[in-house]
Amino acid sequence: MAAKTAITPTRAQDYPEWYQQVIAEAGMAENSSVRGCMVIKPWGYALWENMQRVLDRMFKDTGHQNAYFPLFIPMSYLEKEAKHVEGFAKECAVVTHHRLEPDGEGGLRPAGPLEEPLIVRPTSETIIGATYAKWVRSYRDLPILINQWANVVRWEMRTRLFLRTAEFLWQEGHTVHATADEAMAETRQMLDVYATFAEEYMAMPVVKGEKTPGERFPGAVMTLSIEAMMQDGKALQAGTSHFLGQNFSRAQEIKFQDQNGEVAYAWTTSWGVSTRLIGALIMTHSDDDGLVLPPKLAPTHAVILPIYRDESQRAEVLAYCEALKADLKKQMYDDGAVRVDIDDRDLRGGEKKWYHVKRGVPLRIEVGPKDIANNSVFVGRRDTNESQGIGRDDLVAKIVGLLDEIQTNLFNRALALRTSRTQEIANEAEFRKYFAGNPGFAICWFSSEEEVQPLLDELKVTIRCMPIESAGGEGVCFLTGKPTSQRAIFAKAY
Amino acid sequence: MAAKTAITPTRAQDYPEWYQQVIAEAGMAENSSVRGCMVIKPWGYALWENMQRVLDRMFKDTGHQNAYFPLFIPMSYLEKEAKHVEGFAKECAVVTHHRLEPDGEGGLRPAGPLEEPLIVRPTSETIIGATYAKWVRSYRDLPILINQWANVVRWEMRTRLFLRTAEFLWQEGHTVHATADEAMAETRQMLDVYATFAEEYMAMPVVKGEKTPGERFPGAVMTLSIEAMMQDGKALQAGTSHFLGQNFSRAQEIKFQDQNGEVAYAWTTSWGVSTRLIGALIMTHSDDDGLVLPPKLAPTHAVILPIYRDESQRAEVLAYCEALKADLKKQMYDDGAVRVDIDDRDLRGGEKKWYHVKRGVPLRIEVGPKDIANNSVFVGRRDTNESQGIGRDDLVAKIVGLLDEIQTNLFNRALALRTSRTQEIANEAEFRKYFAGNPGFAICWFSSEEEVQPLLDELKVTIRCMPIESAGGEGVCFLTGKPTSQRAIFAKAY
Repeated sequence: MAAKTAITPTRAQDYPEWYQQVIAEAGMAENSSVRGCMVIKPWGYALWENMQRVLDRMFKDTGHQNAYFPLFIPMSYLEKEAKHVEGFAKECAVVTHHRLEPDGEGGLRPAGPLEEPLIVRPTSETIIGATYAKWVRSYRDLPILINQWANVVRWEMRTRLFLRTAEFLWQEGHTVHATADEAMAETRQMLDVYATFAEEYMAMPVVKGEKTPGERFPGAVMTLSIEAMMQDGKALQAGTSHFLGQNFSRAQEIKFQDQNGEVAYAWTTSWGVSTRLIGALIMTHSDDDGLVLPPKLAPTHAVILPIYRDESQRAEVLAYCEALKADLKKQMYDDGAVRVDIDDRDLRGGEKKWYHVKRGVPLRIEVGPKDIANNSVFVGRRDTNESQGIGRDDLVAKIVGLLDEIQTNLFNRALALRTSRTQEIANEAEFRKYFAGNPGFAICWFSSEEEVQPLLDELKVTIRCMPIESAGGEGVCFLTGKPTSQRAIFAKAY
Repeated sequence: MAAKTAITPTRAQDYPEWYQQVIAEAGMAENSSVRGCMVIKPWGYALWENMQRVLDRMFKDTGHQNAYFPLFIPMSYLEKEAKHVEGFAKECAVVTHHRLEPDGEGGLRPAGPLEEPLIVRPTSETIIGATYAKWVRSYRDLPILINQWANVVRWEMRTRLFLRTAEFLWQEGHTVHATADEAMAETRQMLDVYATFAEEYMAMPVVKGEKTPGERFPGAVMTLSIEAMMQDGKALQAGTSHFLGQNFSRAQEIKFQDQNGEVAYAWTTSWGVSTRLIGALIMTHSDDDGLVLPPKLAPTHAVILPIYRDESQRAEVLAYCEALKADLKKQMYDDGAVRVDIDDRDLRGGEKKWYHVKRGVPLRIEVGPKDIANNSVFVGRRDTNESQGIGRDDLVAKIVGLLDEIQTNLFNRALALRTSRTQEIANEAEFRKYFAGNPGFAICWFSSEEEVQPLLDELKVTIRCMPIESAGGEGVCFLTGKPTSQRAIFAKAY
């Protein structure tokens, strides 16, 4: 299999099509017959469940509670915040009727028109804000720190599995505070939570930064984001945290009496990550043989593949595998036991091996009669695609360390790629040359978003964010030569 | 507080209104501004999360995996199964447009009409079946054992929090099998899972039975259900499991090649429980002081209430409470550690105590300076509303037993109520008298659903189910006197 890869085409041949094939071969998701809506298959959903479990714990550890708000938003609610509606009006699924009736030709037609159309939530600031307005009376009711796990719908014209779908799954945090400082601290805290999750669990390095005004969430005063680099050098926005100021509290009348008895508008935030993270994870780590999963999020850490020629060997090999599985499952990794499966399906050995390679299982453990005789097993690592024999008890003792090593290796590899493809660019000529080639992240001083926008449109480049880490200092705009204190990452993007 | 109750009205005064007040006072849910859609507040949602965690584990232990399918169903899909569409056409939210545009008067109007209207899923047999049709080719692809956690919408005209809402949260299992026997075994197995969950976790006794043809799920060959009795004697259907035969596989073309090379339609099942279970739990256990939670599902098992007169006592009392909390959390109950909170808010003692009474926390532990001096605490049980002093270390040693005792007591109390209000009824006169009084479950022989329906409609009584346990035997119909082998539970119902 040296020359042939499990995925066709390869990344080098056709990155977008490679991405679709990785998903298909791993059994993660597929398009449904409903335009733009995907079916998330068990292997993809199990990954999402692991992401949810970790994020949910992080949200609770930072004082948040879960709740659930309506799927539908009255059309008039959207109208209340002008920029918000402007941002979402073009991609709203609109419910206009509440029943079906015979159309007289053997089919059905919508009936029972609603007095007011309902929007399927594209995001829930307005409907949650309307509820919060009822809950908040006094400073004693604050802060409100709530998250919801939900589906949302944005009627996108061009969709791609996980990255951009009409319906997607996400979490959206919505908080209310008595002061701007507190709301800003929350906004930053949740960005940090996302960055920690991306780096420590997804093994995906991210840049934390502030969005320029033109890239802000519709209605926000400030939007922070984490930006990751995919293996093709393109940027992917992986999570956002918004300081909404008093924009939504004014639109929704979220007011409270402060400690001095004065009535004031509250300060709100919202923050979210979605199933898009699955797309980011795939594009960060996978290779030409398919999906590669970071151990901390992999539904299965290790799969044991029993090998036997005939029925006479079967019982012995399976018993050995079961005992090995039991011992491995006693080892603790991250937040629980090592997750081990035995794949005893009746498939040819090669077929079975490649099944798990394509699904990204971090460790494959092959066990045959000869191995049993030596009390050793054959272990394949998905990250390096290297295999080697190892003593059975040695594996049990070392598996947790091995998983840690894979997790670290994946992060370091992604970081090295990002470092090698991040470059400071000082002037327009360099900028044009950089984005005509095989670009990554360009770091540039720039004087204003408006001034650079025409060039960006021409080159199909976007401003990703103004990195928090490198904030401060002075430079000259790469385009205009004007002195400026703003620096940003420019990149092609998903 | 002997005479006055925390909830007004009491159960005896006005059961439906008592139910609403229990929910409001416990902070579980409220109506939203969107007709029929509720907001599930943190305390209600935390209970749902516990239910989900247990059910999800039970589904996985029985071989199921989770996945996620689209929110929207093309209208034409519903048309394919005649009875199914008949059952749901009158309560469908219909999406007809995919954007909003200015209406010329400063407002918005729906725009971008869809070629085919989309239905917000009321249940997902059709959209999931269409996907399964693509997945199933051979007997080797079977069985498919998948569950999804999702929101669904049924445009009900009369709604009530948790019991009947336009949008609700649920899980829906959808499985495909090669044989009728296997599908039937699955249908029965999942009913057993629901019954186990209801009795062992919700502490709610249920009757397992088969629905009569008129009460079946639209499109099912057989519907099984679990039925519970609420404290007002009314029945509540708490979960259903459907044997769909080949009805949906014919409508959706789910076909496979069997071991003999013959192409056959597959056999399917579906099964679900919803946030309605929260309503059932509330009405089974709560009393005139509010919510009562079975320990296995309670978000908090025990709340520690520090009591001190002034700041000088505060530090000592809090330190004692923290140490007690730490020791209690080391105890293992059911599937994890005992869940303990300290409520150190600045509220009057009485107010704080009633806050937790109304929220149904199983144990309240009061700790004041005098208790500390004696190394004892004052413990209040929510199920019996009894309080008593107990040695601090004794409580640590006994808390798990105490929670077990409460769980058992709640089940036994509910079972005793059901037993006392279940009666065999032999003829029409008795039947009329029974349902004119303060009825519960009437067990009757009956010859046919059609024959008894007019009387049921007159008395507003329904056939709940034909209990599996008491199946078999012969009797005479309570109404017609005809010999029959069918026996059912009749009751007023939610």
